[in-house]
Amino acid sequence: MAVYTDVSDTEIAEFMAAYDLGEVVSCKGIAEGVENSNYLIHLETGPYILTLYEKRVNPDDLPFFISLMRFLAENKFDCPLPVMDKNGQALRQLCQKPAALITFLKGLWPKKIAPYHCAALGQKMAEMHLLTAKFNQSRPNNMDLGAWQHLIQLSEPKISAYPQDIYPALQEELGFLSDHWPTDLPKAVIHADLFPDNVFFQHEHISGIIDYYFACTDFVAYDLAIALNAWCFDENHQLDTQKSTALISAYQKIRPLSDAEQEAFPILCRGAAVRFLSTRLYDWLHPVPGAIVSPKDPDEYWQKLCFHQQNNNFATLLS
Amino acid sequence: MAVYTDVSDTEIAEFMAAYDLGEVVSCKGIAEGVENSNYLIHLETGPYILTLYEKRVNPDDLPFFISLMRFLAENKFDCPLPVMDKNGQALRQLCQKPAALITFLKGLWPKKIAPYHCAALGQKMAEMHLLTAKFNQSRPNNMDLGAWQHLIQLSEPKISAYPQDIYPALQEELGFLSDHWPTDLPKAVIHADLFPDNVFFQHEHISGIIDYYFACTDFVAYDLAIALNAWCFDENHQLDTQKSTALISAYQKIRPLSDAEQEAFPILCRGAAVRFLSTRLYDWLHPVPGAIVSPKDPDEYWQKLCFHQQNNNFATLLS
Repeated sequence: MAVYTDVSDTEIAEFMAAYDLGEVVSCKGIAEGVENSNYLIHLETGPYILTLYEKRVNPDDLPFFISLMRFLAENKFDCPLPVMDKNGQALRQLCQKPAALITFLKGLWPKKIAPYHCAALGQKMAEMHLLTAKFNQSRPNNMDLGAWQHLIQLSEPKISAYPQDIYPALQEELGFLSDHWPTDLPKAVIHADLFPDNVFFQHEHISGIIDYYFACTDFVAYDLAIALNAWCFDENHQLDTQKSTALISAYQKIRPLSDAEQEAFPILCRGAAVRFLSTRLYDWLHPVPGAIVSPKDPDEYWQKLCFHQQNNNFATLLS
Repeated sequence: MAVYTDVSDTEIAEFMAAYDLGEVVSCKGIAEGVENSNYLIHLETGPYILTLYEKRVNPDDLPFFISLMRFLAENKFDCPLPVMDKNGQALRQLCQKPAALITFLKGLWPKKIAPYHCAALGQKMAEMHLLTAKFNQSRPNNMDLGAWQHLIQLSEPKISAYPQDIYPALQEELGFLSDHWPTDLPKAVIHADLFPDNVFFQHEHISGIIDYYFACTDFVAYDLAIALNAWCFDENHQLDTQKSTALISAYQKIRPLSDAEQEAFPILCRGAAVRFLSTRLYDWLHPVPGAIVSPKDPDEYWQKLCFHQQNNNFATLLS
């Protein structure tokens, strides 16, 4: 939950006067989103989300994220649309921070994942990948193998605080990934953070996907691997075959994976596990005093990595 | 900011099915309210607030709070109205906790207080007191002098962590209040927590008052003293005469203070300062590990108490 910046009623009224959307009826800080401050604003014309970009987002990347959302929305992909002010600006300043007003998306994110959620996600993600392949902007993935190595290295001096001595195994895994990470799979702009709290449902259908602030140009199959880890594991950290089959077969109906993508998939899953393990481990070992967001437990992703190390045969799943 | 209980999409849908208000369109945890978990829910018929009562609220008190809100709303006083389900129940259970759906109140609370805010509050508070004098239920104030004494006593073993040695002065103040606290002023149900974040404005008018979870039967002039402390001090902890005059004269236009109330007012202001100093001091000295709400700085109310100890002449203000 997060609201890092307190915006006053007068500052909000001034900010909103730059849009043709009527007066501010109400404004509540919302307890969602870890990286930014989000407000649910009711204007006379309806509800909107006001996002203030906090320090974990690089301001230089914001035009890319805004363009991507506009591109997706203009191509009928359900995602929030950044709203232009009267001067045609979507990205503005509020309380000395970059800020954007975005359209409100109906729906709720699913807390308990069922196979139908995974099937809906697989289809929607494949549609997104077909679309973003036509998007003419790119952004390097700054959460790549080099970043994982760096974060794990920065965690080493404090690693004794972690209940298990996972550092040697992590070093070994990083070496393995460095040796085996694919180099020539199809690339496009990927979401790179497709966790359930970023996917809204109405009934059994996806009403939209939010939070494009990790989007980057990378292997599209890696996006699928991130989602598999986030959506298809059970409470014992074992892969749920029903969910993973639902995700992957729905994806392949729209965008079949190439032979090279299928072959690389187990490695991509290990990398996707290390990606989130490395940030969670770092945040868990470096808690911020007075932080309003508790660090997520890294163990979940350590267990997922162990699963993938022991089960590298996705042949049945991918066929 | 607070959302202590995670409610799932399916739990919310089940809970809402008991009302005749259409389907759930969206649900966001909101970062307001310290004592309870609050969600802003969009139903097909419009927005509502869903409140889950957490452990700081005594469940036995909830019927009183709900009745009070219904009484005020039925008497055209702008406040949220607890909604009855199809079985006529306003107070229900969600995630093993008491929960209520309440109507959504337009408006924003003021971050920077101007005299017109104080005038609007004075008038609205007096209207509320005239109304609650006719409310046929009562609830003892469990945050009374005895409670302040108890909290300050519990703070004593840790008081050395506080930057100043305020304990002897607090003991002396408690003795003074005990000797001088009035006994026979007019009583009614008071709000007892009329801070700016509980008072919503649209333009220069109050659109409603929320959060009745400290409401109790006590001296009505004590409610005014709490508001004076919360709304009328400047950044240097001095009383802002424009604001305090605006508050009190607007109040008196609707409900003139009796001679006894005027005479007791300086004592009530000191008590109102000790009331919030005692809870803030206790919370500050006893931080809860992993708490998502940072304790408020007690110093603000210590300074306000010192002001009232040195300035006990409200004659000009009250005339």
